[in-house]
Amino acid sequence: MTQAEPQQINTLGIVGLGLIGASLASALRQRGVPLRVLGTDSHVESAQKALALGYIDEVVDALPELCSRVDVLVLATPVLTLPALMQQLAPTLHNGTTVLTDVGSVKGSVRQAALDVFGTLPAWLVPGHPIAGSEYSGVDAADPSLYDRHQVILTPEVDTDPQATAAVRWLWEQVGASVQLMTVDRHDEVLAATSHLPHLLAFALVDSLAQESEKYEIFHYAAGGFRDFTRIAASDPTMWHDIFLANDEATLDVLDRYMDHLQTVRQALAQRDGKTLSGVFSRAKHARDYFSRLLDERAG
Amino acid sequence: MTQAEPQQINTLGIVGLGLIGASLASALRQRGVPLRVLGTDSHVESAQKALALGYIDEVVDALPELCSRVDVLVLATPVLTLPALMQQLAPTLHNGTTVLTDVGSVKGSVRQAALDVFGTLPAWLVPGHPIAGSEYSGVDAADPSLYDRHQVILTPEVDTDPQATAAVRWLWEQVGASVQLMTVDRHDEVLAATSHLPHLLAFALVDSLAQESEKYEIFHYAAGGFRDFTRIAASDPTMWHDIFLANDEATLDVLDRYMDHLQTVRQALAQRDGKTLSGVFSRAKHARDYFSRLLDERAG
Repeated sequence: MTQAEPQQINTLGIVGLGLIGASLASALRQRGVPLRVLGTDSHVESAQKALALGYIDEVVDALPELCSRVDVLVLATPVLTLPALMQQLAPTLHNGTTVLTDVGSVKGSVRQAALDVFGTLPAWLVPGHPIAGSEYSGVDAADPSLYDRHQVILTPEVDTDPQATAAVRWLWEQVGASVQLMTVDRHDEVLAATSHLPHLLAFALVDSLAQESEKYEIFHYAAGGFRDFTRIAASDPTMWHDIFLANDEATLDVLDRYMDHLQTVRQALAQRDGKTLSGVFSRAKHARDYFSRLLDERAG
Repeated sequence: MTQAEPQQINTLGIVGLGLIGASLASALRQRGVPLRVLGTDSHVESAQKALALGYIDEVVDALPELCSRVDVLVLATPVLTLPALMQQLAPTLHNGTTVLTDVGSVKGSVRQAALDVFGTLPAWLVPGHPIAGSEYSGVDAADPSLYDRHQVILTPEVDTDPQATAAVRWLWEQVGASVQLMTVDRHDEVLAATSHLPHLLAFALVDSLAQESEKYEIFHYAAGGFRDFTRIAASDPTMWHDIFLANDEATLDVLDRYMDHLQTVRQALAQRDGKTLSGVFSRAKHARDYFSRLLDERAG
């Protein structure tokens, strides 16, 4: 695998200094990566805080100026804001000296936005997605270790400039991430299954119980397992609204297969078919134990 | 609330030295509670290990002898083993000098088993359920802090001997638990919603993804949120098989309501109805944040 030389990237721009953007900036700073980092956020206080905390070197709110002054520009804003941002950036980006990447949880909608705005998929566009997060959000939740030993998926096209891909790969590797390349469609399927569907199930469960329970009384008797299971239902609702609308098709596919499977489990329960239930539970435990070992190994 | 005086209980018996039974024994030992603890387990090695580790004072495998030598007997075995155990214990229990309790996650089936075996609900029977657990199981997973600041629900009937209830309450309070009284039906509804349903959803999700994914490849791209969400799918399959068959009705009720709600969410997604999705996510986050504060307060 090729890597861009560090000296190819001297300046980085980050649009959006929430959890994802500010964690990237703070990680670069903490690890002493020699990059000048310029940033902006639609909330003025967030950008000022990122500056005050030393995560970024300078606040540059004018997008054309920010874009023209950096080697790599990271869009770290909610997925549905990307088309408008690309539109604003298009005149500056067209000269092709800045590599553009993003951190969106859905990549099909990013590809579509780029096609709509640029008329083609530019060679300097390298869509990306760090598989890391938290139920907390905003610059105050910035965590310099957020990407350490985590995966970042990049979805370049066949005609993406290899140097652009290498630059974005290098950036993420500087903050401890392991970078994987994947097609856009595969990314969106995989994320629908491992992230978007679980979030949907957790949001729906907590909402369902809350509606049934007088003054949330039922939650008084829930314990650690429920806390873990529903942690993802504390995530930012706006971000998830955007993700689901951006990845509706892949999410519906995997949701429908899940609902079919749940119907089978329901039938087994209604018929007191212990053998089928045991099969589901045993297979699930086996797979979960495998997954847990995977994560443990990755954590070193 | 009345409490039995500690001196009323001098000896405790534990049938089943898995996670729940061995954690109770180790917590009593660690906290220096002056009780002589006798125990047994269908796996001889588990009982010997609990003895070697000092969790219990003596292994007594003969159930009639164990029962006749203790003030309180805790049945800490899978829910579906309780009828047979009660049958074996019935001749000794009938003299009424031993208080019987259990730790089963379902209380309706325990009441039914008692009615079947004893012909009535004995005054010395105090069904119980510590709301605590782990994805690990067995004597090796014993954790003396498992019940600290956790809730234990007891479901005595109106004609249960108050001294028997007080004795079981006292026992759990010695290991740091907060004891709540509840009717059997309410317990089973509450647990179906906050524990049994989430486990069913998690088992079904992991099994569904595992079946679709060649060699579990999809799990390579899952991260922390998925780990939390599916932790409960690593729980002991046999135990959960028993729980679902014992609490099938209440679980089906809450599962059907959940599936209806999920169908509504699915429709909103299919129709790209962002307003409905936002409503679900925002209400869920509000409820989850409330629940999280509750747990934090309880943890002191």
